Amino acid sequence: MLIVGERINSTRDPVKRAIEKRNQSLILREVRQQIEAGAKLIDVNCAMGMDNEIEDIAWVISVIQSELSNVGICIDSPNYLAIDAALKVYNGKGDIIINSITGEEPRMRNIIPLALRYNAKVIALTMDERGMPSSKSERVDIAKKILSRAKAEGFKEEDIYFDPLVRPLSCEPGEVRAFLDSIRPIKDLGSVKTICGLSNVSFGLPDRSIINSVFLTMVFNAGIDACILDPLDQKVISSLRAAEALLGEDEYCANYIKVFREKRLFSA
Amino acid sequence: MLIVGERINSTRDPVKRAIEKRNQSLILREVRQQIEAGAKLIDVNCAMGMDNEIEDIAWVISVIQSELSNVGICIDSPNYLAIDAALKVYNGKGDIIINSITGEEPRMRNIIPLALRYNAKVIALTMDERGMPSSKSERVDIAKKILSRAKAEGFKEEDIYFDPLVRPLSCEPGEVRAFLDSIRPIKDLGSVKTICGLSNVSFGLPDRSIINSVFLTMVFNAGIDACILDPLDQKVISSLRAAEALLGEDEYCANYIKVFREKRLFSA
Repeated sequence: MLIVGERINSTRDPVKRAIEKRNQSLILREVRQQIEAGAKLIDVNCAMGMDNEIEDIAWVISVIQSELSNVGICIDSPNYLAIDAALKVYNGKGDIIINSITGEEPRMRNIIPLALRYNAKVIALTMDERGMPSSKSERVDIAKKILSRAKAEGFKEEDIYFDPLVRPLSCEPGEVRAFLDSIRPIKDLGSVKTICGLSNVSFGLPDRSIINSVFLTMVFNAGIDACILDPLDQKVISSLRAAEALLGEDEYCANYIKVFREKRLFSA
Repeated sequence: MLIVGERINSTRDPVKRAIEKRNQSLILREVRQQIEAGAKLIDVNCAMGMDNEIEDIAWVISVIQSELSNVGICIDSPNYLAIDAALKVYNGKGDIIINSITGEEPRMRNIIPLALRYNAKVIALTMDERGMPSSKSERVDIAKKILSRAKAEGFKEEDIYFDPLVRPLSCEPGEVRAFLDSIRPIKDLGSVKTICGLSNVSFGLPDRSIINSVFLTMVFNAGIDACILDPLDQKVISSLRAAEALLGEDEYCANYIKVFREKRLFSA
């Protein structure tokens, strides 16, 4: 499973301050730690409480690729101009993913041509003008609509990561099963991929890492291709490594044992 | 999900000594702790390294029911005479389950009439004269054979707990998926139930509680009815309570929050 590290986010105070003060070393340390813990892409979000998102996101990406040119970037922004600036500045060798489009027409009309121009992939949230869906079939239907629209523009199936969107358990109990059950039929639409954010589901509950790590086991078991998560959360990484070992994606449990030896498992 | 507590087992040194010295208070403390942590039945195993299994198991059960007459007992023995002695002495108000029969004819011929006589349920392991199966279909086929044989003797479907048997991951990688996939078709055979032991899967690996707790999430997600486990293992119980909350079996996450407040979750 592809790990997208979520820690470069301006909702986190140390990251917000580092961006404001142009503190390269903190940004690079956060990125290196996430890569060492298994992240292949780094989500970059400079949207929260900042006045200069466009310059900030371009700065963060240029800092990352100045030292770590192989790492992929996930451009996490609601702002078309910030996405454009981020795409312009990125010249690394990893994947570049726009986070995100939805089934809403204006967003698709703006972002799909931009993604095509810069050879970027996209995360597509299965929601549209009617809001967020509850059932499995609504999620699959919105994914179909987005896929059809994107392909009509010449976008490749395999460059779309669908996020079937899970709402916080504390607000919408009983919806996790519909979310999980939608992963397989969305994958069956073609060579598209699936992704989800891990931490939304536990919003408002105590000991959120426990909920997140159990949820991770469930989405992994359901066949998800990628997850946006905090790779420094040892409960979460322990669950992922154990799930890979259990479901035959870690031959001889070699990686599980390696991570154990590196003391990256969450032990008593 | 029904929890069967596994701690009264003579492979554990303190329990072995308590049985030898007829130390009632240790046995009762172990049983009470398991009930407080959520166990509804107590597995009792006096088979390991003891010369007097028949008297020992009868003594342990009489001690438990002298104080805790509502708790069910799972009689865990390879010995027909020990099972008979345990059934004779049990007069509590809980369920009594014989652990276990297999698809092997002599075992069924002996145990099924005994279970009928004492109104006991049985755990049926999906293995037979040919050994332990690897595939989903072999597991389901053996379950069918056992079910048909038991029903012919007048045994009720709902009194059978099938254990599809998982082998240690370190010996048989890649088999957990077949095990998980067999749970649903076995349940579909009728009103039978499913059960598994939790700790076998992690044999030989480091940090076994992590593997066990992730495996528990997977079997819960697959619809298992009961699990034999150590309810004092906080990683395992944390996973179970989070999985129940995620999959809509804990309204308003009330039990998850209660267990958090009781400090029974595995926290940093």
